[in-house]
Amino acid sequence: MTWKNTVTDLLRIDYPIVQAPMLGVSTPAMVAAVSNAGGLGSLPVGGLSASAVADLIQKTKALTKKPFAVNLFAHSIPAVNEQDFLEMQQFLSQFAAKRQLDFSSQPLSSLHFSTWEEQVDVLIKERIPVVSFTFGILTDDAIARLKSNGSVLIGTATSRQEAQLLADKGIDIITVQGIEAGGHRGTFLHDEIPMIGLMSLIPEIVDTIKNPVLAAGGIMDGKAIKAAFILGAQGVQAGSAFIACNESSASAAHKALLCKATDADIILTRAISGRWARGVRNEIMRQVDQSALNIPPYPYQIPLTIFARNAAQKGGNEDLLVIWAGQSAFKAQAKGAAEILFTLVREAEAV
Amino acid sequence: MTWKNTVTDLLRIDYPIVQAPMLGVSTPAMVAAVSNAGGLGSLPVGGLSASAVADLIQKTKALTKKPFAVNLFAHSIPAVNEQDFLEMQQFLSQFAAKRQLDFSSQPLSSLHFSTWEEQVDVLIKERIPVVSFTFGILTDDAIARLKSNGSVLIGTATSRQEAQLLADKGIDIITVQGIEAGGHRGTFLHDEIPMIGLMSLIPEIVDTIKNPVLAAGGIMDGKAIKAAFILGAQGVQAGSAFIACNESSASAAHKALLCKATDADIILTRAISGRWARGVRNEIMRQVDQSALNIPPYPYQIPLTIFARNAAQKGGNEDLLVIWAGQSAFKAQAKGAAEILFTLVREAEAV
Repeated sequence: MTWKNTVTDLLRIDYPIVQAPMLGVSTPAMVAAVSNAGGLGSLPVGGLSASAVADLIQKTKALTKKPFAVNLFAHSIPAVNEQDFLEMQQFLSQFAAKRQLDFSSQPLSSLHFSTWEEQVDVLIKERIPVVSFTFGILTDDAIARLKSNGSVLIGTATSRQEAQLLADKGIDIITVQGIEAGGHRGTFLHDEIPMIGLMSLIPEIVDTIKNPVLAAGGIMDGKAIKAAFILGAQGVQAGSAFIACNESSASAAHKALLCKATDADIILTRAISGRWARGVRNEIMRQVDQSALNIPPYPYQIPLTIFARNAAQKGGNEDLLVIWAGQSAFKAQAKGAAEILFTLVREAEAV
Repeated sequence: MTWKNTVTDLLRIDYPIVQAPMLGVSTPAMVAAVSNAGGLGSLPVGGLSASAVADLIQKTKALTKKPFAVNLFAHSIPAVNEQDFLEMQQFLSQFAAKRQLDFSSQPLSSLHFSTWEEQVDVLIKERIPVVSFTFGILTDDAIARLKSNGSVLIGTATSRQEAQLLADKGIDIITVQGIEAGGHRGTFLHDEIPMIGLMSLIPEIVDTIKNPVLAAGGIMDGKAIKAAFILGAQGVQAGSAFIACNESSASAAHKALLCKATDADIILTRAISGRWARGVRNEIMRQVDQSALNIPPYPYQIPLTIFARNAAQKGGNEDLLVIWAGQSAFKAQAKGAAEILFTLVREAEAV
């Protein structure tokens, strides 16, 4: 196993292993631990205000001098059908009432969502070495500004067509998100999400574009890394492997449920955010998916379901925990993030 | 790449590469060509009468002295909701009328479906060296009879739980069907089909059972074979790679559409047979999936949709062709089946 390649050169890291950005799970400590160990930590900032982004970056920089990525949600805010929103609000407020939970959702007209466009100035000012993104593609202007500021750009593709578009727009590295992957699908060019396994998707994208690719999805041990390299990847992105680590902000209950989940419990759903995402089936997913309601598009569904996450995070209501997880996530280990990285490296070298 | 292993020993073949059984596509000539070249051809007989099975076996035996597999659909016939059947019949007869196609479906009461249980005596009598199956598991009695008759048994699993059950029942080799795979899903233990990519599913099953496993899904070149071995498989099963071969009974139009399809065109649907299967989206899938109708369970939906396949096979109506296909199926090549096998071997050796 030779680790030095285009990805390590571009990112100035030792091992082409990226810790996936996981909102609500990844912390500055996790990001710094992975980067300090020679991988690439990723700080998720999707949906956060510019000041919150600046704060998280400062906290991370205080813990590492090594390169790390800041990850953006490169989406725009779509139109929403008001009737759908109101019906979902009604449905979830009844759900909350039945369980005696506090449901305090704002009216549609008062919702404000922070987008990646409000965050770019912070990234420019902080001279972020690596900017990764998902859910779409940055504007030509933002791409040009970030690149001329020295940022390496990583985009996310779930199909050949998306990879081709990212390559055409000058994105440096492409994260190939297989159907195995946990959390939100990055899909942005298709009406229906492509559900392509890495065994097919890596070779297809490697054959389509010249850019180096990272394989994401089901990367839980060294064999998967080695297999991804055989298929043509020059690096991997691992998320679930880091959820149970010491630096994770996931609760003990969250980690325990993750490690008990079989792949049959880990489903694709739009119930939580309005966007397809893979996670451990919970009661909100069950109820919303069984209802005949139209789910408002991302990000409108988020403020409607946030009450459940808040309730679960206070303790109790474990069946409302939102646990994004990839296939094979049960293999996640409770160790330091650096030790998880080194274990992956050692295992891949031993294959 | 070392080919000799438990799979080649058990099956008495040179290369642990199995040509997947594809009803309507695989022919005795294809099966014999693959087996003669040192792989394992598979003759699909699901749903055929005992005499048709005997006939196909004779034809295959006339072309090869090497071991080949006969593949059974190990399902039972479930109850069907008569109302659902009648509504679907009505819907499809209107579809046929609009396109001026001949729709002659039998009444529900007169339908007879041949099952694997009617086929076992033929396999015993013909001393079939390898009996593979999907959609379930054979009865204990049938397993005992086939094994004492010298047959090696191969079952199909789409989850750890299914693999464990097959292993517990004494099945020799497990085909691990990743979500990448074309044609019918083998799922038999879950209400919702698990949609697990090979990158996760191979290691999970290899860690769960001691039996050797074959990886199925997206196996289109030597890199995929090598990656599957890295993940712990001791062999592979390739279907789509053989669809366009010279010995295939697929029509020229079928092969042409296959090689044009992107993964976004290749969907999972119950519209054709009542069982989840992956194939190139056609007009029947589009219309049935968009209808709010309950689809009768397998095999009841088959006689209701057969009119469309018949019409497409006569020529014209290409948008009604049923083209089962795995992810990356567009890579299928028009060569002899033996040459396809040798190419896979050479490519894997060169990785």
